[in-house]
Parts: sequence; C-alpha cells; structure tokens
Amino acid sequence: MTRSATLVREDMQKILREQLDGMPIWTDAKDMERYVSDWHKDVVSGAVAVLRPGSTEEVAAAVKLCRDLDLDIIPQGGNTGLVLGAVPDDPKRQVVISLERMNKIRHIDPENFSAIVDAGCVLSEMKDQLAEREMFFPLALGAQGSCQIGGNVSTNAGGVNVLRYGMTRESVLGLEVVLPDGTIWNGLNSLRKDNRGIDLKQMFIGAEGTLGIVTGVALKLSPLPTQVETALVALGSLNDVIQLYRRARVDCCDLMSAFELLPPSAFSLAQAAIPDLPIPVSDEFPAYALIELSGSGLVDVADLLARFLERAMEDELVLDGTVAASRAQAASIWAIREGMNEGQALHGPHMRTDFSVPLAQMAAFITEAEAAITSALPDCVCVSYGHVGDGNVHLNVLPPKGLSRDECDMRIDQSKKIANEVLYNFKGSISAEHGIGRLKQADFEAHLPDANLELISRIKHALDPELRMNPGCQLSRQATP
Amino acid sequence: MTRSATLVREDMQKILREQLDGMPIWTDAKDMERYVSDWHKDVVSGAVAVLRPGSTEEVAAAVKLCRDLDLDIIPQGGNTGLVLGAVPDDPKRQVVISLERMNKIRHIDPENFSAIVDAGCVLSEMKDQLAEREMFFPLALGAQGSCQIGGNVSTNAGGVNVLRYGMTRESVLGLEVVLPDGTIWNGLNSLRKDNRGIDLKQMFIGAEGTLGIVTGVALKLSPLPTQVETALVALGSLNDVIQLYRRARVDCCDLMSAFELLPPSAFSLAQAAIPDLPIPVSDEFPAYALIELSGSGLVDVADLLARFLERAMEDELVLDGTVAASRAQAASIWAIREGMNEGQALHGPHMRTDFSVPLAQMAAFITEAEAAITSALPDCVCVSYGHVGDGNVHLNVLPPKGLSRDECDMRIDQSKKIANEVLYNFKGSISAEHGIGRLKQADFEAHLPDANLELISRIKHALDPELRMNPGCQLSRQATP
Repeated sequence: MTRSATLVREDMQKILREQLDGMPIWTDAKDMERYVSDWHKDVVSGAVAVLRPGSTEEVAAAVKLCRDLDLDIIPQGGNTGLVLGAVPDDPKRQVVISLERMNKIRHIDPENFSAIVDAGCVLSEMKDQLAEREMFFPLALGAQGSCQIGGNVSTNAGGVNVLRYGMTRESVLGLEVVLPDGTIWNGLNSLRKDNRGIDLKQMFIGAEGTLGIVTGVALKLSPLPTQVETALVALGSLNDVIQLYRRARVDCCDLMSAFELLPPSAFSLAQAAIPDLPIPVSDEFPAYALIELSGSGLVDVADLLARFLERAMEDELVLDGTVAASRAQAASIWAIREGMNEGQALHGPHMRTDFSVPLAQMAAFITEAEAAITSALPDCVCVSYGHVGDGNVHLNVLPPKGLSRDECDMRIDQSKKIANEVLYNFKGSISAEHGIGRLKQADFEAHLPDANLELISRIKHALDPELRMNPGCQLSRQATP
Repeated sequence: MTRSATLVREDMQKILREQLDGMPIWTDAKDMERYVSDWHKDVVSGAVAVLRPGSTEEVAAAVKLCRDLDLDIIPQGGNTGLVLGAVPDDPKRQVVISLERMNKIRHIDPENFSAIVDAGCVLSEMKDQLAEREMFFPLALGAQGSCQIGGNVSTNAGGVNVLRYGMTRESVLGLEVVLPDGTIWNGLNSLRKDNRGIDLKQMFIGAEGTLGIVTGVALKLSPLPTQVETALVALGSLNDVIQLYRRARVDCCDLMSAFELLPPSAFSLAQAAIPDLPIPVSDEFPAYALIELSGSGLVDVADLLARFLERAMEDELVLDGTVAASRAQAASIWAIREGMNEGQALHGPHMRTDFSVPLAQMAAFITEAEAAITSALPDCVCVSYGHVGDGNVHLNVLPPKGLSRDECDMRIDQSKKIANEVLYNFKGSISAEHGIGRLKQADFEAHLPDANLELISRIKHALDPELRMNPGCQLSRQATP
C-alpha cells in the first residue's frame, strides 16, 4: 500500500488534540518515555503521540481519527511485555493508544463465577478486588502489579498456574474489541457455554493487538482457594524433578496449582535482588521444585501435600525440603522464584528465552542446550527454570560481569543461536508464553510454514486491510504486503 | 458468485471414481442414506456422492477434485449432530466427505499427557484405548459410541464434564486441517504452551466444517481417574439445586466432574426406554441432581462426597438420595440421565433445545419458560434438565401422544417461539453446546449483531473465498454473498 503524503508531526498532534477534545494526550518526549520504551529499557523509541482514552467510545474515536490521519496504532496495556509487542518502532507515523485509564471492574457476578472488567485493570489490583468477593482469577505472573488484563488477553499470558487453569485464553468468556476500522465489537458474553458459530473472540486472544484493541473482558472465575500450601524441595537431578511432577499430577490430582523448576543458582540470584531473603534449604542440590497445592471447602490440602511429600521422601526422590508454615513463609519461597528474575536483571545484559518442549523431553532439552552453550561459551552461566507442568523452560544465559556491551551482546547472540538450534531439534516453541512481538518476529518468520503464513496473512488482511494495527509485531511488514 | 454450467450427476460420479482411484465412494441412494440424513431421521436428503478417504492426503485430493468439478463439500464425522450441521441440503451439487475411515490413534505420549489421533476416531473407542495407557480424555456425551473426535472438535462439543475440563476446545493442543483449497495445514502441535502468534487452530474449532476439514487432532489428556463417586440426590426446588451446586463448587473444589439437573419425569422417561432400569430414589421430589466426583492418587473422593452430602442433608438441602456402591450402580444412575433422552425420542416428535443462561438465572429461567409454555399449551409437558455448572439447560416440550404430525408440529413451533422469547430476555444462548448447523441458522442469523456478521463474513471469505465448505451451515447463502 502506498501512503498519501502525510502532515507534519506538529500538525497531526494539533489535530489529535482538537478532535479528541478532553482526552489526555502526551506529545512531549519526557511524558511519552515510559510508553515508547520497554521495561528492560533495551529499546527507547518515540511516537507522534500517546493517546489515553477513558472509555471504549473514546478508543473507537481515537482509532477512527488515526485512520483519517493515516497514522498507525500501537495498542498498549501495562507495557510489561518482554518481546517489544507494545513498543513503537516508527516514531513518525505511529501513535500509542494506552488503555491505562480504563481501569474499572464493570460488574462482578459471584453467583455466576464471572466478572466483566475494563481492559486497563491492573492484574493484581483486580484480583484483590475479586478476592474480596471470594472470587479467584487464576492468572499469576511476575508483572502482575503492573500488567493489565487487556494486555494479558492480547498476549494470552501464561504464568505459574497454567498447569491447573490453562492460559489466559481459558479464563476468557467474552471480549469487547475496537476493530481496526473503529467499529466496537461487543462480545462481552458471560455465558460459560456458548456455541453460536465461530468463536470470534479467539482471534483476538494472543494476536498482540494486530487485529484490534481489546477494551473489555468477561472473565471466568473460580471460588477463592482458602487453603494454599507451598513447599520447596530439593532433588537429585532434573530427571527427578520431571518424575516428581508426574507423580504429583496423579497423586494430587487437580488440586496442584503450581510446580516450578528452580536451579541451585536461584538462591544467590534472588538474594542479589533481596539481600535478607531467607533461604530455607541448602543450595547444594542439583535441582529444586516449588510446589503449590490449593483448594477450598472440604478438601484437606495440607494433609494431601504432607502425604505426597512423605512418600516422595521415603522413595528418596525428594532429598530435602520445607513446607511453608505460614503465609509469610510461603511468600518468601515465592520471592525466591520472582527474585531470581530481578537478580538476573541486576547481573546485567543476558540472554532470556521462553521455550517450551514436550514435557517428557524437558530434562533432556535443558541438559543438551546447557552443554552446548557452556561448551561454546565457557565463561557464561546458564540459568534454567520454568513451569514444569507446561514443559515451559526459561533457559537464560548470563555473561560474566565486567564485559563491554559489545562483548556481552556477542555472547547473547551466540547463545541464543545455539539454544534455538537445540530447540528446533526438540520441536519446541520459541515462545511458550511471552508472545512474538518485534523481538522474536524474525525468528518466528524464519521458521513459519508457508501454510501458516498464508492463513495469518489472510486473516490480517480480512480484519485490518490497511495494516494499521501494531505493524511489525508478529510479522514483518514485508511478510504481509 | 455465478457457477459455471455443471456436468450431469453421472458424469461427476464417474470422474470422482476415476480420479480418486482406490477411494471407497458411495453413489447409490441406499448406500448414501445414513450419510445424507440426520440421526433423528427428521431430514433425509441426498448427495452427488459420499467420499470416504483413508488419509489426510486423500482428503486433500478429494477437496481439490471437488473444487475442479465445482462441487460443494459437506464434511462429516459420526453424523450424530443435533442441528443438521453435517447433512447436505443440495443433493445435485454437494458431496459428503466422511472421515470414518481415518480412525487410528497415531501416537500416545503418556509422559506428555497427550495424544495425536485421526479425526475419524470414535470417541468412546478412543477413550477406551487411552484408558489402557492410564490416560483420560474428558469429553463425555450421549453419542460417544458413534460420534467422532473430528466432529467433536468442529462442533466444540460439550457434554457432562465441561464444568471441570471445559469444552472440547480446551482439550485441543493442535489440529491438522485440509483447507478449502486442498492445502494441508499441519498444526499438530502437542506443546502445552505455545504462544507463537495468532492461534490458528481456534478458528476451526466450532466452525462446523465451514472453514476446512479437521483430519487430525492433538489432544490434551489427564491422568485416568481411579476413583469415581456418583450420587443421585433429591431436592425441594430448582433453586435448591443451584444452591447445592454452588456449595459443591466450593466444598469439592476441582474434584467435581459432573453436576446434572434432572426433573422428576426423568425416571419414567428413562424406564420407557430401559424397562428394567432400577430407580434408586422416590420420584416424588420436585428436583434431582446427579453428582460425580473423581480423582486419582492420594485424594479420597469417597470420603469427600460423603462429608459433602452429610452436611447438605443436615442443612435439609438434600432431602433424599443414594450414593452408588459399585460401578454397576453408578452406570445405572447415569443410564437414567442418558435413557431419558431415548425416552423422549420414543414418545414421538417433540421440541428440543440447548439453551444456556447465566448460572444465577437458571432456576428463574426454567420456571418462567415452563410457565409460559404450559399456559399457552396446557396439553404439553415440559422436561428440563441439563448441566448446572455451565448454565446449560435442555428445556424440551413433549406434545401429548396421539396427535397428528401437523398438530404436533404446531405445538413444537409454538413452544419453541415462546421458549426463545423468554431466553432472549435472559440474554441466553440458543446453542450452548450443539452448534448452529442448518437447524438453528435462521434463529442465529435473526439475532446476529451486524458487527458479528461482518467479522464472520470476512473470515469466511478470507479462508473459503469460493464458499465451498458446508454452505448453508451456520449462515445462509444470502448472508455471505
């Protein structure tokens, strides 16, 4: 598509302000900074403006005006994504539409175990409000204090509870979306079963804003777990961790809500970020698992966990461990899991991945990939952790401290290349839960089968014929001409 | 689109036979009968031919040839659907492609809790084979002895276990689909987490074959429940049934696998179909619930159910009831639930529905709809039952015996009109789990918002520009010109 000659930036900003009268709009570089960079600050870009609509109608008006002005649109939630899916890359012709001002819970229906919320609700705040009504929304991830539910839907976010509750997709009953032409599509249905034709909402879940802007979400909820039991256990090998998971899946049935793999380095990384964090087990074992069971009512989760661990210790599968005796202890165990992310960030630039492989191959994959990386880059340290139940491993690589940025980047690039190669042999995914965004777009495209590209292109052109929504995200501009 | 002048029927049959050499093809009316009529035999149609490919490649070849011959395609699984979604309606230009010969389990991966299967696998046979490997596929519905997994996926089938495991959609990890142009799309991914871009498979789930033919499915499995406990309890009102469900949802947590509402008439209807079926409770209570809990490993499901029911009886919510003491007793309780369907069929022509409403409104909806129907049609009997956890009610209406077909049909039409009207006031769905097909297409279209029609049309044209796949299903030919 050829673009008509466009107005100069200042003219466009003026028109946006005039036509979207009353909507807060940022145009200064300083005001826009946090909207045009990612949270790691790896990329700092710019935009014609950041629009901050306060209602679905205002989002629709903004989209229509951008269309009239031939501006492209970057929809944005909490901007906590890890793949540059909500960060502009063409400052002269892109506008960020932030959903942050649309942050109200519209309706909670405890009788129906459902709620309808604005897309801009911050995940943890929303969960807290639902918990006051004894309702539970299961999505749980590190960024939950900042990420927004619309972004979670658009990226089909994962997190630590997927093994029991599924990805975000499985907790969405309905959506409200502003389409690329400014039409408001109201699919805010709270019915738990509704088979009236093609399920349109599914297209927008995980589309990372390339097909429209999610403005409202109908959520499927569960009763609030009143019993939550957390254990941190030490094991003799990666393989034993997988074996313990398989046992837990059978023995604890659908009462297991998390099963995380941690490496021995988790403890020092977490303590680098949170110096006085208590570490309740020795860090001298080869592998660790963080296990959470939860439930409500008449089930006895504490007893179940105790009996499960007892047997696993009798069989010498679990070698050491601790069960949290209080909420505070449980929180400090989880702080190891979350703190190790921060510890890696503090360490400096490093290679991060979000791989998934079939569960049965998880141990073999980690072993093979780590061996290949440390053999090629002996001065680097591998840190592999993740969500065992989903076969999802974050295999990260930390270059030694004190290197120049170039030396670091060289190691990051090389380790990524090696890891991806091993991954493709295991038929794994380069994005288990983070999405594609702009960061993984080239890798994604390089391995995309023709039939997939054809299907995606057809859908993109059908819904966004002007290719105005989040261009360059997921697919390059060249791939969808 | 205008169609080119077509060959006569016999010529087309000859070409099909020649070009699809080796593929079993039916063209005689007698051979084709069960493929061109629905299982209630309400509609008996015809087709140019019934093609029975034995592999994905043969399906692709058949689709390409139909395209060359300008023939439309009706994909068909077990043909057990209740909405005429797989029954041809234009015998002169439609071909049925039956998947029944593609009935192999391709691969079971117990380590990964997954399997890859042909679309033509019969549901119950497939479940039995998986059970031998201690794996569980949760979909359970009356037609499971005949329906095929490809049809289950294409209709996003529901059934009795949805409250715990979700619709079929939530058990699908990947799909293989022959697209309308004959391309084979291989999305047979068994990864439990994969966020690489738009989730293409979602479009085909629930599309009832209007966007392509599902030929293979990657399934998400669970450990086989080794403890299954079944109870049939009597309650004082519909409202009490809903209240008991809400309690069970909290008290029994995610170990509840079914919670079915039964009316008092269930017993006599079931006995009409299965004369010596034991009825373990008095039929003099206003409402009944069939409750199933299940689990494996270290959970004690029998104890949980006993404690749950004890409390509910102490509180006089449950008035009477029985817990199955053996598998045989559990089966005979479930036979009441399944037998009442057959009993209604034996009664003669009747009005069947597949409604869903928000759970909180389920009792009010049934009461209001039944009152409206019996007030207008005092000689008819309402039979309302369904899946309480999903707000899914099958509100059926039986005209008295001995009426002419016309008199019956008049009552069926009128009761349907009344029921639909009440439903729309409750913002319910006319299809909770059966789909739209051809039977509900007019109702669906009449209430379809413009934005939905626009989105569906765009997707349809993007994927099936010749409108060759299952035309007239879901949308009329006029709606997608």
